[in-house]
Amino acid sequence: MSEDRTKKEICVELPQVPKAGGSYAVVKLFGGKFLYASGCGPILDDQTWKGRLSEEYTTDEGYRAAANCIRNMLAAIQAEIGDLGKIRSFVKLLVFVAGPADYGQQSQVANGATDLLLELFGDPCGRPARSAIGVSSLPNHIPVEVEALVELEEQD
Amino acid sequence: MSEDRTKKEICVELPQVPKAGGSYAVVKLFGGKFLYASGCGPILDDQTWKGRLSEEYTTDEGYRAAANCIRNMLAAIQAEIGDLGKIRSFVKLLVFVAGPADYGQQSQVANGATDLLLELFGDPCGRPARSAIGVSSLPNHIPVEVEALVELEEQD
Amino acid sequence: MSEDRTKKEICVELPQVPKAGGSYAVVKLFGGKFLYASGCGPILDDQTWKGRLSEEYTTDEGYRAAANCIRNMLAAIQAEIGDLGKIRSFVKLLVFVAGPADYGQQSQVANGATDLLLELFGDPCGRPARSAIGVSSLPNHIPVEVEALVELEEQD
Repeated sequence: MSEDRTKKEICVELPQVPKAGGSYAVVKLFGGKFLYASGCGPILDDQTWKGRLSEEYTTDEGYRAAANCIRNMLAAIQAEIGDLGKIRSFVKLLVFVAGPADYGQQSQVANGATDLLLELFGDPCGRPARSAIGVSSLPNHIPVEVEALVELEEQD
Repeated sequence: MSEDRTKKEICVELPQVPKAGGSYAVVKLFGGKFLYASGCGPILDDQTWKGRLSEEYTTDEGYRAAANCIRNMLAAIQAEIGDLGKIRSFVKLLVFVAGPADYGQQSQVANGATDLLLELFGDPCGRPARSAIGVSSLPNHIPVEVEALVELEEQD
Repeated sequence: MSEDRTKKEICVELPQVPKAGGSYAVVKLFGGKFLYASGCGPILDDQTWKGRLSEEYTTDEGYRAAANCIRNMLAAIQAEIGDLGKIRSFVKLLVFVAGPADYGQQSQVANGATDLLLELFGDPCGRPARSAIGVSSLPNHIPVEVEALVELEEQD
């Protein structure tokens, strides 16, 4: 199964490793077998993502933004641990969706993140617990931000 | 004490187990002795909960909504682990309260969640760390959402 | 290094231990070697902090508010564990910044928290993973709130 996952990992085209937007670590290892991935945004390559759901972006676009957040996160995790096959399980995602008071499709947006994890890592590894919430705004006006708690395989 | 908690558990009337509103797990076990409960909303049975605090709902109603979130969460946890007596401690709650910029009673709303945990599980098991925040909106326009990190008793 | 950290700790002037604003624990130990610090606000001594970023407060003031949140949190952690030298690592910060839809400087505000941790605890101990988000409002209208997951040194 670990082998299988390693193969799948090869199918993921990962973007450049995102840089921290401040005095923090994009990925922090802890407790010998866990890591926390900081809130990652949706910007890949030279894309511009500025705006809120139901204003500048549709829910479908938000879904793609959430998937982008995961791509950035996986690039950061791979840079830290060397091999995504070491991931035992995505434990918990927190998905922040910028939008106005009358926007209620945060779950559909967040599915962009967890659908991709399920496709890449399978069930149950790629099916975390999750909260999706609507926030007034995010750093640099990105529409979506995703953070994750991840459990790693035990080291031998 | 564990026996005592099991008895108390019998006094909780749990609602139907809530279904995940997307591609995630409502409860995710990890690290051999922890679980994360996804953001749970306040809808029990055929109730309607749509709106924000200080608009459609008073702080007292928000308090009851937060308690409902915990009832749903406990139903989901029991479905996953079989027995709420296996819970060693509620570690951390994150309570999201939908409301406008001038609403500041998020702590009072969140007490609806932690007061119920204290009543059911006692102190310190039912007294977690907690953050309560005001958000612009939540999935499907629910007024309150609660997620939790929970520590379980060690398995023999 | 542990010694060094203990010395540094002496250089921190800690405020009074903050009281919980509801039925929760300001600091909750768990898993034998972790703690969660509840969302801490910026109020030290008799200061007033009421308002939102880009309205009542500039980003520089928000930066100082975030540092205050950490001072309050460290006071609470020290009261719980007795010695800040027992902290192995700040794992993850979640920084809530109250502001309007068009505010996008949450990362700069959050740097007020992590810059102080880096100054006091060094790298990598004081460099956690971090998410910074813009929320509509916070309890009692404080502008910034910070929660933290912390790993402790193993007990002998």
